[in-house]
Amino acid sequence: MQGRGVAAKRLWRELHEASEDDLHFRDSRILGSMCTEPIPIARRAHAMFLEANLGNPGYYKGTWRLERETLRMLADLLHGKNLGGFTVSGATEGNITALWMARNTTHRKEIVASRTAHFSVRKAADLLGMRLVEIPHDSEYRLDVDALRKAVGRDTAAVVAVAGTTELGVVDPIDAIGETCLDRAFLHIDAAFGGFVLPFLEDSGVEVPPWDFRVAGVGSLVLDAHKMGMATIPASHLLVREAKHFEKIAVESPYLTSVYQTSLLGTRNSAGVAAAYAAMRSLGREGYGNIVARCMKNTRAIVARAREAGIEPVVEPLMNIAAFRVRDVEAVQRGLDARGWKVSTSRNPPALRVVVMPHVTARAAAAFAGDLVAVCKKVGA
Amino acid sequence: MQGRGVAAKRLWRELHEASEDDLHFRDSRILGSMCTEPIPIARRAHAMFLEANLGNPGYYKGTWRLERETLRMLADLLHGKNLGGFTVSGATEGNITALWMARNTTHRKEIVASRTAHFSVRKAADLLGMRLVEIPHDSEYRLDVDALRKAVGRDTAAVVAVAGTTELGVVDPIDAIGETCLDRAFLHIDAAFGGFVLPFLEDSGVEVPPWDFRVAGVGSLVLDAHKMGMATIPASHLLVREAKHFEKIAVESPYLTSVYQTSLLGTRNSAGVAAAYAAMRSLGREGYGNIVARCMKNTRAIVARAREAGIEPVVEPLMNIAAFRVRDVEAVQRGLDARGWKVSTSRNPPALRVVVMPHVTARAAAAFAGDLVAVCKKVGA
Repeated sequence: MQGRGVAAKRLWRELHEASEDDLHFRDSRILGSMCTEPIPIARRAHAMFLEANLGNPGYYKGTWRLERETLRMLADLLHGKNLGGFTVSGATEGNITALWMARNTTHRKEIVASRTAHFSVRKAADLLGMRLVEIPHDSEYRLDVDALRKAVGRDTAAVVAVAGTTELGVVDPIDAIGETCLDRAFLHIDAAFGGFVLPFLEDSGVEVPPWDFRVAGVGSLVLDAHKMGMATIPASHLLVREAKHFEKIAVESPYLTSVYQTSLLGTRNSAGVAAAYAAMRSLGREGYGNIVARCMKNTRAIVARAREAGIEPVVEPLMNIAAFRVRDVEAVQRGLDARGWKVSTSRNPPALRVVVMPHVTARAAAAFAGDLVAVCKKVGA
Repeated sequence: MQGRGVAAKRLWRELHEASEDDLHFRDSRILGSMCTEPIPIARRAHAMFLEANLGNPGYYKGTWRLERETLRMLADLLHGKNLGGFTVSGATEGNITALWMARNTTHRKEIVASRTAHFSVRKAADLLGMRLVEIPHDSEYRLDVDALRKAVGRDTAAVVAVAGTTELGVVDPIDAIGETCLDRAFLHIDAAFGGFVLPFLEDSGVEVPPWDFRVAGVGSLVLDAHKMGMATIPASHLLVREAKHFEKIAVESPYLTSVYQTSLLGTRNSAGVAAAYAAMRSLGREGYGNIVARCMKNTRAIVARAREAGIEPVVEPLMNIAAFRVRDVEAVQRGLDARGWKVSTSRNPPALRVVVMPHVTARAAAAFAGDLVAVCKKVGA
């Protein structure tokens, strides 16, 4: 570290140069991230609560109230009653916390999940000293319920099902999974992406099979307000049907204003708490519904244009994620990159993965679809 | 969740009401938190990089560069060479990650720490399925090295030592601990608080026993830029002597722009990365030195005034944390609370704990000391 601080002017230049080397959602070129530009009021709420730290809740009673109110809104959205819950930094922390709770409650060590589950489940298994039993999916890339029935046994601590897989945006058959888990294993739902999409699709009349606390077997659910929830990072929420499960992971927290701490993290950025509250209060179901409708319209436009050129999606997108079967995935990704588009790839199956977030305008979606077709033709994919 | 969003005016009122119910560092009444008001340029850098997410580093090359540069500054500050490291959300995540790495590297399950270590070590032990062996401290509340020598054995994965205990701000005898651990156990240093204090005390001529990478046995160290580092939450840094240890906790991250992910969290708020960079570049050793000197002056002023009234500190403060022996700790805390001061308590030994952070002005420190003496007299403590 240098002895004397650098002048503000020079530091600003350094920060601006770094910012210019980052990609920005506002440029409408990123179709490879599940995050997006937070709405302005969420940004402003974040800045206003920058010091808030719910790791020490006694000092932040106002922020704590915003968190409780946010959880109440979410419980209502997810058809839960008297749920427990708190704000976490993301679905990875949410998944780890749920599995930690399941391990400590059941004293068992096995996690059962489809291999379409997010890699944070593998991470959690290693961290927690648990064993991950990966089961197959059906032809639609949804967890195979027959395989689940065989896999769940007396060593099973938890089952993880996904409401919106990372790679394809597919929803596992949670109704049947819940039935299998009832009284046999703790069922955790990873709705990191789908949590802020599915309720609004349902509002618009799309038929979505039950995936939330309406399913009796569901024990916990995580959803990311910093993805389709339009809030800032870090804002994700873990909700549990039985708040008493949190006792199993509570650690005494002397010297703080709380007596016990049940969160994985200690000091917690709680600016995201205010940002999530602001986004939900400001948008309401109607506002989210409009955002989701726009994303779906753009997704369908891209799929339709691709189809005209003979490029088929792996599954018909339910949400604003589409993965396309192309022969040489990496070549297409490189070709699109050369035209300024950032997309990602899926591994199962190998495909070109496109996430059509709210920062992608209709105009950008049309331009992207044209380039996708052109690049595929060029590289012969 | 309500159907229609509420009007911006109403939402602002709700947010302002919540903010008014929070405590604020700027009021100079909080002497019970290890966090403080970030410096303005750190706040502004945070806002500028609000979208940055080093969970997906390929999109944030500028932020990534700021992180590398920050780690380089810290390695220099901590006398390390070619250290590995990354930004974490706080020392809790840093402690968990270091112990996870130690467990996976050694294939052993025991953690040895003094009972003065932070409660996140107990949390980590439960999470990771490890066993925490708590050893005694000496009369100065520093880890007892004789007890450590007896406790470290062939089941020991890691030893945790503290450079600035949470309760008393005491530094464990890390030189002797390092000697004991060399080739026998992984040594992790929790310098959450001391990391941004001790180097600047040393710069000012205070004799501080070696506590960082100068000690050969030290394997990893965590320090919080969002405590005395004057940055925003979340900004903490985990540094390791051998970057290859991170491989032991790497999880494949398909679909992201990285191939492996070694962090506990997935999506990561990286606005704190920019804030930490801005704070360090802007302040330099000189700027931090001035801040630490002011905090120490205020701490000594409080201790001197208390002493005049016969109220003795548990140990002579090395850093800006002082704990006072009073007969009825809770009564004094309540009395100070009634006068608008927020202090906390320590448990070992039971004492009134005061953290004199940079937001506490000289004037506030003097007023607080006067009230401390008055309250102690009143409640007969």
